[in-house]
Amino acid sequence: MRDEGNDERRKKLQEQEEQLKRRMADVKHKIAVISGKGGVGKSLTTVNLAVALASHGHTHSVGILDADIHGPCVPKMLGIRGQQITPYRGGVSLAIGPLGIKVMSMDFLMEKDESPVVWRGPLKMHAIRQFLSESNWGRLDYLLIDLPPGTGDEPLSVLQLLPDMDGVVVVTIPSEVSQIVVKKAITFARMLKIPVIGVIENMSGFVCPKCGAETEIFNVGGGQKVAKDLDVPFLGKIPLDSRICDDSDKGMPFIVHHSDSPAARAFMEIVARIEEWLASHRQVVPSVRGSESKSA
Amino acid sequence: MRDEGNDERRKKLQEQEEQLKRRMADVKHKIAVISGKGGVGKSLTTVNLAVALASHGHTHSVGILDADIHGPCVPKMLGIRGQQITPYRGGVSLAIGPLGIKVMSMDFLMEKDESPVVWRGPLKMHAIRQFLSESNWGRLDYLLIDLPPGTGDEPLSVLQLLPDMDGVVVVTIPSEVSQIVVKKAITFARMLKIPVIGVIENMSGFVCPKCGAETEIFNVGGGQKVAKDLDVPFLGKIPLDSRICDDSDKGMPFIVHHSDSPAARAFMEIVARIEEWLASHRQVVPSVRGSESKSA
Repeated sequence: MRDEGNDERRKKLQEQEEQLKRRMADVKHKIAVISGKGGVGKSLTTVNLAVALASHGHTHSVGILDADIHGPCVPKMLGIRGQQITPYRGGVSLAIGPLGIKVMSMDFLMEKDESPVVWRGPLKMHAIRQFLSESNWGRLDYLLIDLPPGTGDEPLSVLQLLPDMDGVVVVTIPSEVSQIVVKKAITFARMLKIPVIGVIENMSGFVCPKCGAETEIFNVGGGQKVAKDLDVPFLGKIPLDSRICDDSDKGMPFIVHHSDSPAARAFMEIVARIEEWLASHRQVVPSVRGSESKSA
Repeated sequence: MRDEGNDERRKKLQEQEEQLKRRMADVKHKIAVISGKGGVGKSLTTVNLAVALASHGHTHSVGILDADIHGPCVPKMLGIRGQQITPYRGGVSLAIGPLGIKVMSMDFLMEKDESPVVWRGPLKMHAIRQFLSESNWGRLDYLLIDLPPGTGDEPLSVLQLLPDMDGVVVVTIPSEVSQIVVKKAITFARMLKIPVIGVIENMSGFVCPKCGAETEIFNVGGGQKVAKDLDVPFLGKIPLDSRICDDSDKGMPFIVHHSDSPAARAFMEIVARIEEWLASHRQVVPSVRGSESKSA
């Protein structure tokens, strides 16, 4: 049943996975941002977490893999759409965002906004493997991975390709409908033996900018409840704020451009909790980063 | 390369597709609800559209296929979680919601809330084919299909399995980030030669229940802009309203339980536009429904 074409493909795949291992050995922390339902603020969390980490002494040492093949939003939210991805040193160069954040996204490979990527799972797996193995990530302190919603091909591919992930950050909105789905995402991470860093509750209440009255548009407390039910850390709540959407549309991370807003303050507390978690869970950080120290 | 196992599988597949054709011949209108990004209100739209159509003289003649394998929300939103799906007349019986709406969803097949469906594309395609071919849909005036976000395996499977679809309803939120992704969904439908019934702009502005001030939390007008840019009908805007989330969590369609709210009134106008569109685009409705009249 084996033929030369198959052998060739198998060899190529093996080379690619070895390259992926080599590249990933230069990355200190790998964190995936996941959710159950879409539209809960995964990309928003990824982008602002990247900016926060970069600004905490990791300029030019944070990378983002936008693993949402069908709906990549990271470049738009960082204001770097249209940057060119070009061949460089046996791989491809990455787009560079604020504070030297390195970004790989399907968005850079599309000619037009309206062009959809009509791919089934195997092609998406292939693309993600290429994004990880052929991008010149260089030495990174943090690689954040923005995963599409659900527990299907893309999350599975990423989490299987990167077995030494630090953990996942889970984003949800407070509604009961979302709670059901986010529980599945947490169980999914556990099945793959990836630690859950914690749950973020986004879109948690809205304060009217005119009268100050608070409305629980998508309810409040659902993220906290899920964290308690499934015994994982709760990282914090981010309130709804029209400036967040505005900033995302303009490509300006809200934690920088509205750093005094309640949402930004809440977010920075979440970042501190994530940093604490990382510090306590990866105590033996190799001083010389290399494949030997990582594969141990 | 052919072996008996393959022949067997091919035969089974063919039988299944013939059964699917027979079942679908008894369905007058098939409408898919799609989006680019997740979390924009696809399931909300599907559920409320189903209730509106059922209440307009189509009791017991509306069905919903919840094609979101990883994050099925339709049963929760209709208050029918936990109903039993049982073998019945060479297929499976369906869950029954308000006004006799027939529902098939992965949710009915899961033992626990937190159990994820960790499936790659081919298995999902298989499940969707089964949902369509083995469910006892019976005679329906409308089958609504709630598709997961994106332009990958599930939307592709459904739209390829049902080539004689009336059209797709596209849901978006107004943000620019969402606009980019929803354009891809519209182009996707066009590539598959499925008519676009129109675009719904959900989460369009929020009116403070205390002071009446309007805040554009996710901006306003983005859906309208996409519709204009891509020359497809605009169906209307639905404002944010905390009662919508509450009703969804309680399994009560908001157009019934808060029928006097601005959101419900906006939604009913959208339903009227969809009904108009269907009336004008499918003028030759077969009086005797059968495979002959549909396959023409």
